[in-house]
Amino acid sequence: MARLDSFHLPPEAWPDQGSGVLAGAEARHMVKVLRLSPGREVRCFDGQGREGVFVIRTTKKDRVDLDKVSESFTPRPEGGLTLALGWTKALRRSWLLEKAVELDAAGILFWRAERGQGGPPDDPKESWQEKLIQAAKQCSATWLPELSVAGNARDLASIAPRYSRCYVLWEESGAQSKLLSPSDLAQGSCLVVVGPEGGLTEAEVETMRKAGMVAVTLGKRILRYETAALMALALGAHGRNAALPDR
Amino acid sequence: MARLDSFHLPPEAWPDQGSGVLAGAEARHMVKVLRLSPGREVRCFDGQGREGVFVIRTTKKDRVDLDKVSESFTPRPEGGLTLALGWTKALRRSWLLEKAVELDAAGILFWRAERGQGGPPDDPKESWQEKLIQAAKQCSATWLPELSVAGNARDLASIAPRYSRCYVLWEESGAQSKLLSPSDLAQGSCLVVVGPEGGLTEAEVETMRKAGMVAVTLGKRILRYETAALMALALGAHGRNAALPDR
Repeated sequence: MARLDSFHLPPEAWPDQGSGVLAGAEARHMVKVLRLSPGREVRCFDGQGREGVFVIRTTKKDRVDLDKVSESFTPRPEGGLTLALGWTKALRRSWLLEKAVELDAAGILFWRAERGQGGPPDDPKESWQEKLIQAAKQCSATWLPELSVAGNARDLASIAPRYSRCYVLWEESGAQSKLLSPSDLAQGSCLVVVGPEGGLTEAEVETMRKAGMVAVTLGKRILRYETAALMALALGAHGRNAALPDR
Repeated sequence: MARLDSFHLPPEAWPDQGSGVLAGAEARHMVKVLRLSPGREVRCFDGQGREGVFVIRTTKKDRVDLDKVSESFTPRPEGGLTLALGWTKALRRSWLLEKAVELDAAGILFWRAERGQGGPPDDPKESWQEKLIQAAKQCSATWLPELSVAGNARDLASIAPRYSRCYVLWEESGAQSKLLSPSDLAQGSCLVVVGPEGGLTEAEVETMRKAGMVAVTLGKRILRYETAALMALALGAHGRNAALPDR
């Protein structure tokens, strides 16, 4: 199925049986950019585990009618890693969203750190979701990371109980923090908090520690924001891969 | 020393004692962009383990005379990871060079893969070295990864004996390749071959396997070129961090 062109058919539009309708940007892309015609097979996925082969029945400018040929469902992976990223300027946000899909993050959460540049909007932006969808098309991911926003460190502390394990990347020199390992991220649902470019404040770390979150380090080198985020994602992906029963 | 502005003073210009001269782009940056004046302390590093505090004595447009105040030397880390990247279009090359510095790669080698887009130039480009230097300033790395170029898979096979361990990332579905782990990269000098965007050919993998290089996978997901490279760097950095005696 990997060779077919992929389109995101959102869960609310996914047909229980028979035929469905692809609308909006995805339909325009199919018709105007790729110029696919009736009769052509395509892959659709809903980002929540469902994917299927569909045949194009009719095309209009921004509406495509599709007939479902086959369908499969991949259960949501148990646990997984949610990255809580201190809000920062947009520079590498899109890029991080793409990598989160490739490295199978369970979620991406943006929060307002004291040394960050302002805070995230009240709700995840549609453009972020769009970025996740484009990334999922590329790598055939069936589940999209869940997007969310939070307030400050106190708010992160209050959601800590939702996760099996919570870690805070804290590179304060002198502190002999534990080295974050793939095995720390292999099981259950894990939250990894990454500070903004300017780093976390002691008060923020203290607030999160009091809530049972564990301060960890990625090594002695001070990494850039996006490198730290990527390394956490990579260690998590490796930890879960190594824990798979067929290895 | 981390708070001082950093400048690259190449090994051949590094003064054994007393005073030295910063020239070219680094001098112009100091004088015209940062507008530092005589009397100011700066950090200089040579990218081969030496760093020191210097005081600016006199500034001209593209020449700065400096007096050395103190100096320290960090021995070259034993072993480390060299990434052999299939040559591909420039899109994310600078970015990968930056990450290689942050994640302490020992080397970056570009090679001509069959499915790549042409091959690298005969010698590493000066702009690549410049990128490494800029990245090292940011993260205070004292050693720069060594840049090199190679020919095809046969040429990679011929240099395999220089390394303690050689791995080839090979995501061919069906092949039950070994999962590459941080511990595989923790000791000695390791070479990790990454194919171009289009992947390696079976013949290339066969050539490298015959030379004793081990085919490995990063997991089931097909990763983009730069994501695979990053993940290998991250696993290597973690493996070496975890093997440090003070952990």
